[in-house]
Amino acid sequence: MANILVIHGPNLNLLGEREPSIYGEQRLEDINRGLVDSAAQHQVTVECFQSNHEGNIVDRIQAARGKYDAIIINAAAFTHYSIAIADALRSFNGPIVEVHISNIYQREDYRHKSVISAVATGGIFGLGTQGYQLALQAVVEMLGMS
Amino acid sequence: MANILVIHGPNLNLLGEREPSIYGEQRLEDINRGLVDSAAQHQVTVECFQSNHEGNIVDRIQAARGKYDAIIINAAAFTHYSIAIADALRSFNGPIVEVHISNIYQREDYRHKSVISAVATGGIFGLGTQGYQLALQAVVEMLGMS
Amino acid sequence: MANILVIHGPNLNLLGEREPSIYGEQRLEDINRGLVDSAAQHQVTVECFQSNHEGNIVDRIQAARGKYDAIIINAAAFTHYSIAIADALRSFNGPIVEVHISNIYQREDYRHKSVISAVATGGIFGLGTQGYQLALQAVVEMLGMS
Amino acid sequence: MANILVIHGPNLNLLGEREPSIYGEQRLEDINRGLVDSAAQHQVTVECFQSNHEGNIVDRIQAARGKYDAIIINAAAFTHYSIAIADALRSFNGPIVEVHISNIYQREDYRHKSVISAVATGGIFGLGTQGYQLALQAVVEMLGMS
Amino acid sequence: MANILVIHGPNLNLLGEREPSIYGEQRLEDINRGLVDSAAQHQVTVECFQSNHEGNIVDRIQAARGKYDAIIINAAAFTHYSIAIADALRSFNGPIVEVHISNIYQREDYRHKSVISAVATGGIFGLGTQGYQLALQAVVEMLGMS
Amino acid sequence: MANILVIHGPNLNLLGEREPSIYGEQRLEDINRGLVDSAAQHQVTVECFQSNHEGNIVDRIQAARGKYDAIIINAAAFTHYSIAIADALRSFNGPIVEVHISNIYQREDYRHKSVISAVATGGIFGLGTQGYQLALQAVVEMLGMS
Amino acid sequence: MANILVIHGPNLNLLGEREPSIYGEQRLEDINRGLVDSAAQHQVTVECFQSNHEGNIVDRIQAARGKYDAIIINAAAFTHYSIAIADALRSFNGPIVEVHISNIYQREDYRHKSVISAVATGGIFGLGTQGYQLALQAVVEMLGMS
Amino acid sequence: MANILVIHGPNLNLLGEREPSIYGEQRLEDINRGLVDSAAQHQVTVECFQSNHEGNIVDRIQAARGKYDAIIINAAAFTHYSIAIADALRSFNGPIVEVHISNIYQREDYRHKSVISAVATGGIFGLGTQGYQLALQAVVEMLGMS
Amino acid sequence: MANILVIHGPNLNLLGEREPSIYGEQRLEDINRGLVDSAAQHQVTVECFQSNHEGNIVDRIQAARGKYDAIIINAAAFTHYSIAIADALRSFNGPIVEVHISNIYQREDYRHKSVISAVATGGIFGLGTQGYQLALQAVVEMLGMS
Amino acid sequence: MANILVIHGPNLNLLGEREPSIYGEQRLEDINRGLVDSAAQHQVTVECFQSNHEGNIVDRIQAARGKYDAIIINAAAFTHYSIAIADALRSFNGPIVEVHISNIYQREDYRHKSVISAVATGGIFGLGTQGYQLALQAVVEMLGMS
Amino acid sequence: MANILVIHGPNLNLLGEREPSIYGEQRLEDINRGLVDSAAQHQVTVECFQSNHEGNIVDRIQAARGKYDAIIINAAAFTHYSIAIADALRSFNGPIVEVHISNIYQREDYRHKSVISAVATGGIFGLGTQGYQLALQAVVEMLGMS
Amino acid sequence: MANILVIHGPNLNLLGEREPSIYGEQRLEDINRGLVDSAAQHQVTVECFQSNHEGNIVDRIQAARGKYDAIIINAAAFTHYSIAIADALRSFNGPIVEVHISNIYQREDYRHKSVISAVATGGIFGLGTQGYQLALQAVVEMLGMS
Repeated sequence: MANILVIHGPNLNLLGEREPSIYGEQRLEDINRGLVDSAAQHQVTVECFQSNHEGNIVDRIQAARGKYDAIIINAAAFTHYSIAIADALRSFNGPIVEVHISNIYQREDYRHKSVISAVATGGIFGLGTQGYQLALQAVVEMLGMS
Repeated sequence: MANILVIHGPNLNLLGEREPSIYGEQRLEDINRGLVDSAAQHQVTVECFQSNHEGNIVDRIQAARGKYDAIIINAAAFTHYSIAIADALRSFNGPIVEVHISNIYQREDYRHKSVISAVATGGIFGLGTQGYQLALQAVVEMLGMS
Repeated sequence: MANILVIHGPNLNLLGEREPSIYGEQRLEDINRGLVDSAAQHQVTVECFQSNHEGNIVDRIQAARGKYDAIIINAAAFTHYSIAIADALRSFNGPIVEVHISNIYQREDYRHKSVISAVATGGIFGLGTQGYQLALQAVVEMLGMS
Repeated sequence: MANILVIHGPNLNLLGEREPSIYGEQRLEDINRGLVDSAAQHQVTVECFQSNHEGNIVDRIQAARGKYDAIIINAAAFTHYSIAIADALRSFNGPIVEVHISNIYQREDYRHKSVISAVATGGIFGLGTQGYQLALQAVVEMLGMS
Repeated sequence: MANILVIHGPNLNLLGEREPSIYGEQRLEDINRGLVDSAAQHQVTVECFQSNHEGNIVDRIQAARGKYDAIIINAAAFTHYSIAIADALRSFNGPIVEVHISNIYQREDYRHKSVISAVATGGIFGLGTQGYQLALQAVVEMLGMS
Repeated sequence: MANILVIHGPNLNLLGEREPSIYGEQRLEDINRGLVDSAAQHQVTVECFQSNHEGNIVDRIQAARGKYDAIIINAAAFTHYSIAIADALRSFNGPIVEVHISNIYQREDYRHKSVISAVATGGIFGLGTQGYQLALQAVVEMLGMS
Repeated sequence: MANILVIHGPNLNLLGEREPSIYGEQRLEDINRGLVDSAAQHQVTVECFQSNHEGNIVDRIQAARGKYDAIIINAAAFTHYSIAIADALRSFNGPIVEVHISNIYQREDYRHKSVISAVATGGIFGLGTQGYQLALQAVVEMLGMS
Repeated sequence: MANILVIHGPNLNLLGEREPSIYGEQRLEDINRGLVDSAAQHQVTVECFQSNHEGNIVDRIQAARGKYDAIIINAAAFTHYSIAIADALRSFNGPIVEVHISNIYQREDYRHKSVISAVATGGIFGLGTQGYQLALQAVVEMLGMS
Repeated sequence: MANILVIHGPNLNLLGEREPSIYGEQRLEDINRGLVDSAAQHQVTVECFQSNHEGNIVDRIQAARGKYDAIIINAAAFTHYSIAIADALRSFNGPIVEVHISNIYQREDYRHKSVISAVATGGIFGLGTQGYQLALQAVVEMLGMS
Repeated sequence: MANILVIHGPNLNLLGEREPSIYGEQRLEDINRGLVDSAAQHQVTVECFQSNHEGNIVDRIQAARGKYDAIIINAAAFTHYSIAIADALRSFNGPIVEVHISNIYQREDYRHKSVISAVATGGIFGLGTQGYQLALQAVVEMLGMS
Repeated sequence: MANILVIHGPNLNLLGEREPSIYGEQRLEDINRGLVDSAAQHQVTVECFQSNHEGNIVDRIQAARGKYDAIIINAAAFTHYSIAIADALRSFNGPIVEVHISNIYQREDYRHKSVISAVATGGIFGLGTQGYQLALQAVVEMLGMS
Repeated sequence: MANILVIHGPNLNLLGEREPSIYGEQRLEDINRGLVDSAAQHQVTVECFQSNHEGNIVDRIQAARGKYDAIIINAAAFTHYSIAIADALRSFNGPIVEVHISNIYQREDYRHKSVISAVATGGIFGLGTQGYQLALQAVVEMLGMS
């Protein structure tokens, strides 16, 4: 049975409150609950983690080595500059799927650049909170669990 | 019942033959058949179209107005320069999901830029041919068909 | 009696339907009819051609050599990247007037650059569909037909 | 009856003398007289103003507010850097048409950039001194005077 | 009665010790005491917070939502790259004033760019530690407390 | 008793009329009167000057040498290109405070660059017309008049 | 016996007519006939193809897989932007030689960049129509046919 | 007998007072007197003109046409952006020598670019106020007066 | 007797595990032990610190002021963007030596830029874990302890 | 009878030894001997020269004026920066053919730029050591010796 | 009595032969003889040196230390890239005057950048071979020999 | 017993004389003698070579192949542009250590870029002349001689 770590970056704890016109009205706990539910159907486990602290996310990715089979990560603002997180992801062996709720290519120029993409297996953007569910499916299939 | 148009850009007709280390070994007709099968389960229809001709893709997108409810498009090489296709997509009202089989951010610099992304609802990259299936699901959900 | 070729680029066949806030509500056939009418008054002929296919436009420009005295061209999306069309225009000897219905300098950055401008005699932008009529007048005068 | 202000920027008072291979042999007073004549036919008035002083042009545009219905402006060298003129034009409510006698896109790189274009309604370039006449027509039509 | 949060970014705890030729000789506690005193005169409260940890600053800004009416922030080094802090500020509804003690435009090139400015209401730079007092006044006036 | 010169750049004479959504509804004479009033309380004098002419502003700054103790300047559009004004300010010995009513970092890219900032003591942006009052205070304090 | 495909891009059908000062006076059929003649001497066959349509060139390159042993291509204007043609060439296994009649490095800046070069085996530029003959020799030698 | 016009740009009237470490201690009238004296020896006349107003300099250059045989110009700050002055110089037929007292290549980056250089015959920089004398000699020789 | 602080940035705790082809097989505790041993021979003390948290590193550098005589720092990913760490180092008075185990100039473009270098005394890159020992020697010599 | 000078730039004396995977296994003397042999067949003479010294190559090109009828040059590393060699070539009147053994467009970015190309008649790249033979043929034909 | 070294860079030995439309018809020995003659009048000595070898020029500049009082240098092509020559000039204490015969700002873009200018006292460009004479005068005056 | 070649680039023969504030007061022969002494202790030999001639350095590196086991190189000014030296180093099989006496990242922008770094094993900068000793140690250890 596979274990999947879901990482949410800075300010995603405000989902549903912050700029709902961009990020939608679903709250982070709803997303997480939905992922746990779907995971159960796929016979995998999902653990969710949010932090506004780059260092905590690096720590968590490092700790995931050997304990989780895949990572789904929405690094939020860190997407655009945290080489530390990218480097941590580099040390993880399983599939890594990058998720962005909004279409980052329709927003400010500095959001068009992701330092995560080059170390991820692949990614999903602009499909709303559903993106997490699709990422979960992708990961399940890559792990041969489907 | 919703109708979904799937558009494959230039050279994707060679899938399975061309650079399998990048694009995998699945052939385009396999992908298309898989999409048609899944569509049936979702009670939607899928129609697939491939062309090496930018103009044909523009024509097809224009013709899709009023006849299809959503578009899934892997514009392949056109992704990076065909403003004509981007403009055609702009005239389409339903959801548009951009798909790339490979992780374009791990390849040549000129593949990091998509003129399609800014006119698409969202996109999926680097998740292999499974990306099409996920796009289909995304579209079905966006259309409220799931 | 002079003959003038009017070329409309990709997606202009949707004029009146697509993004009317940008392009206005007039349809392409209205514009064309208006040009033919004005041409009659100026004692010149106008022939109109629209295509979403870059190659067809190149072919048409080549065929215009020796048959038409001037070209009015709104290359639409091709304006920004089709060096092939620019090269074809270079082989045409008469006056060439570039037309853009919208003010391309108030839109996306990539619409600020025209590869056509450097090979055209001159151009008109942002004056709506009236721009075609002004271009016709300009051409008539340049040809000494007024 | 509508009033139209025509503004000529620096060095345009030398038209006909300066670099005739680029700007033609017509003198500024000829252009102005031609515009006044045409205006009479359109039942509008035209007033022409030339200055080598950026500040005078800003003053004149400000003074035009409420007194003129449209502005036709060839800002000449100021086209490329006078944000002050662009800001003044921003405060004017009627149509603004930018004119360039030569095709600025066939000249030095720094002439390819206009800070005026983004605040103008539209523009005409490279059609010689006839460009002013076309601009007048455009304005007359926009004002519903034709 | 309004509450105002003052945030000091990394290394500002060394004020008065570090590079006094650039930052002056006043210590952070002096600045803070001065703000608290002035706040009392304006009948508002001020709370001051310094951290070298980006995540702590993000947390604090999030926690300020609903509890403080305005934020004064000198993000110091984070000014130039912390999109996470900028995103957190975006979720705050009241006025935000950016302060820099030194004139960042007379220093290294990388200090000329602020990712905070675009999400702040406004800012003050180069006026020394007095800048905080001016920011306080600005905020008091914006809140209609003066 | 100190004398302070306040300089307003091009188009600021239209304050209250031009783009009130950006610049507010206060008129320039209101701002000036407010500054004169505040100056009286601080026991300093303020003289205000507006011009749309770069040369006049340069002249005025030169003439201020030896007659005024500080300069407050909102160079408006000239902010972004007038090296002549920056050079004139360089020859002035007292404090110089740059003011912008709007937040120039939330507007067009070309407004993000100030050639004035590097020669000013410091600056205030985005705090509305109150910015002038804060600048006055800053100057009074720098002159040791408070 | 080896088969070699020669591809001529847009506007090369006008050779001898268009800008003879740049491209020389030889016509395309002369070049092609010369290649066929030389091929006979080398005991290889040459087939020549010209198109103004990017899609047709992509189709032709795809169809060449398994049927031709080498490709000689002068992509003309497509050289500078057709990633679709470059991608098609990537799927071809034999030698690919890029030819340009003129010295593209002595012409407009945008002609200095070739998206074909990186996928070709090598290339020849600026040696006039003779370049095709040299390319043929190169290919013959690479195929071990000489 | 030849007439030479010497033009000094903005802030050069402060020479000797402003930043003497950069510009030296000589005053403008000293430079001018020195030029008049030398001119007498060369049997030419020199007339000197200084203005802080770009428009006045443009006017003066235009007026110099037919009246002066050569221009020596230190455009000071205008060097870096006044295309209007450059355009005016373009209309002047005799030799034009650009002078800079300081070595502009050892100063701020924006002083490394001159829009005057491309329209001048040649120039002299960094040789102090002596540069004017050398320019005068150069001009005298070019006019064949030496 | 001198005290030296060794700082290891994010992900360096994984040395020996993460990407051994780039970073070698030595573990961080081995490096640290080696440094402590060498320090003893040089009659200095070495204290080692690793963190994935930028803020902790800033805190530690600040705390080192007055307690340590030199700093050896491998800021890892933070090398490329942490101006906060660079600013903290600026407040430290003794020698600072930057170390990189790998040759950062043979890796991704974004690793070619260090914000630390400009505030360090000097640096060592690409010499493997031996780089730390060389840095120690350099520091010992600079402190006059050798 | 025509004389042709072949120039080989720095490190080409190591051909066959240095990086054979890029440059092939042929040695420079083999290439030179092959050229001399072919020249004999074409009834021309070839002289070959290699140097690691930019100045020697400049000297040799200068000395070739009047003595040789054409130059074939592989400037190797100098290709990318030696304006001195480019200037020397400018003074030579006969045909100049640039040769590169490897496909410089598939290597480091800095090898994509040639300062030689703009002064050469044409060039050949990526066709291995055969490129020299093709260059010889091109030159022979250009000289009308074939 | 002062000694002045005149250095001529690569290809200047061809003056009078190479591109006379750019560089004039005077030969290098004429220039040198003229300088020696003028020097005699100024009671200084001039020694002239030309080389196509960067290293020889560096050697000569180094050897000039203590033996010559000033250097006049036209580094020709080396102007644009030889940091080695610039570094050598940095070690020379007397005045250094850069000369260019042609107006380098009217030529290719890469000739607009000089690595010499920042280490020279000043320079002269575009005034033909007379520029050397003016440089000599400048140097004589700087050395207080006039 | 291993042999190590030490290469010093242009102007390093002036060490101790040239800009001692940047490069220190040690002379090149002192550095060399120190290296020879240390080498003796490590039971290796060191040979030192300095040249201001790029070609000589290339020659020397080529000659080092098979005769030396490692190279220590301070290419000085050539660091920033000599691709010829970089290419020569590429042909050398042993360890290569790049040394810079000063911290090149605290100096002019053009000194921040090294074309040597990418072909060196590693490097040392800003640690003064001690950097050579450290490089020697690094090389000795890499060669397994310690």
